[in-house]
Amino acid sequence: MENRKKFAVVLSGCGVFDGSEIHEAIMTLYAIMKNNGDYEMFAPDIPQKHVINHITGEEMKEGRNVLVESARIARGKIRSLDQFRAEEFDSIIFPGGYGAAKNLSSFAFDGPDCTINPQVEKAVRDMADQGKPVGAVCIAPALMAKILSQPVLTIGDDQETASALESMGAIHKKTGHGQVVVDENHKLVTSPCYMLDATIINIAEGADAVVKKLHELM
Amino acid sequence: MENRKKFAVVLSGCGVFDGSEIHEAIMTLYAIMKNNGDYEMFAPDIPQKHVINHITGEEMKEGRNVLVESARIARGKIRSLDQFRAEEFDSIIFPGGYGAAKNLSSFAFDGPDCTINPQVEKAVRDMADQGKPVGAVCIAPALMAKILSQPVLTIGDDQETASALESMGAIHKKTGHGQVVVDENHKLVTSPCYMLDATIINIAEGADAVVKKLHELM
Repeated sequence: MENRKKFAVVLSGCGVFDGSEIHEAIMTLYAIMKNNGDYEMFAPDIPQKHVINHITGEEMKEGRNVLVESARIARGKIRSLDQFRAEEFDSIIFPGGYGAAKNLSSFAFDGPDCTINPQVEKAVRDMADQGKPVGAVCIAPALMAKILSQPVLTIGDDQETASALESMGAIHKKTGHGQVVVDENHKLVTSPCYMLDATIINIAEGADAVVKKLHELM
Repeated sequence: MENRKKFAVVLSGCGVFDGSEIHEAIMTLYAIMKNNGDYEMFAPDIPQKHVINHITGEEMKEGRNVLVESARIARGKIRSLDQFRAEEFDSIIFPGGYGAAKNLSSFAFDGPDCTINPQVEKAVRDMADQGKPVGAVCIAPALMAKILSQPVLTIGDDQETASALESMGAIHKKTGHGQVVVDENHKLVTSPCYMLDATIINIAEGADAVVKKLHELM
C-alpha cells in the first residue's frame, strides 16, 4: 500500500443539472483506484442554488444541501470542504456537472463575472502553492479560469463557453473525446467529458487520461 | 452497429440508502457499453418509501419520486417502468442499493413476506417468458427469489440475508468479489457487489462479469 497517491475529489451535489455529473464523478473515482491511488471526497456544506427535476428540466420548489446530496455519490463517506487540508493530499480533482457552475461558483448565472466559493478557491490555491497538480473536467475548468492566472485549459469545443473563459484570462485549447490539456506551469489537467456529446466510455477514458497526467505531474 | 444487444436497466432512485446504489448503476451502464451493447433506463413512477440523509443515516422529512430521482443517474434519459416492453430488449438488469428492497419491493421491511412492485414483477416475468436473461446484483436478487420459482442465486456471504432468500424458495450460493452465479434454468445471473465490503474496482469487475454472462445466455 506504500506509494499510493491520495486524491481529493470535490463534489457539488448529485445530478448533472444541479450538482455533480454522476458518470464523471464515478469514473473519476474508478480511474483513481485503477491507477493505484486512493480517494477521499469533499463538498461544501451549503444550500444548493436550486433543485432541478432531471426529467422535465424544471425547478422544483424545495431545498437541498450540497454536502448531503453529494454523500449519495460517496455512500456517506464524505467530509465538508472546510476540513480539506492540502498537506494530506497529492492531488485534487473537480468532476463536472452544472453543480460546479451553480454551487461551487456562480459561472452558470454570472459568466466571466462569477464568484467562486471561498472554500473551493482556498483548496485550489493551497494545492497550487504546494506545487500539487489539479484536475478539472467538463465545466469545472471554469473555476480554474477564475482562480488561477491565465491557465491553459479545455472545455472541449463549445465556442461560447471557451470565449467566456478566455475573457477571464484563460488560454483555451479545443479538444475531442478523451483528450486532455496539460498546463505544466499551473500543473493543471483538464478534459471535456460531457461538454462534448459523449458516451460513458468516453467519460471513463477522459477521467483515466486526467488521472494518468496528474500522476506524471506529481 | 448491427448485432448490438439492448439492455434495460431498472433503477430504484438515486443513492444507496433509499434508492439505486450509484456505483453499481454506473458500472452496469459502463459494462453494457464496453461489451458492445446499448442500454435504456427505467424506473417506476412512484413515491420513494422514504428519504435518507446519506451522512447521518436518518430519515428526512420530505418526499421524493423514484423515477424523478433515478433520472439523475440517467441524465434525464429514462422512461417509466410501465412503458417497458420485453419485446424491445435482449436482457434486463437490476442494480442494487436499498431502493431495490424499499421501492421495488418491501423486502427491507417485510423480509420473506415482502411484496414486489407489480411493474417489476411483470418486467421480469415477461423477459423470463420470452427466454431472455435477467441480471441482478447486490440485494436485487431478493426480487428474483420472490418472482421466480426456486432460482439459484447469490447475495454474497451474508448468512441472515441468504437465509431469508432461502425461506422464499431460492437456492443460495456463497460468492466473493466479482464472482457470479448463473441459473441456467431461469437464465438468471447474480453477483454480490456491495453486499460485500467492496471497492469500486470490485463493483466494475462484478458488473462486467454479469454482463458477459448475460451475453452468453442470449
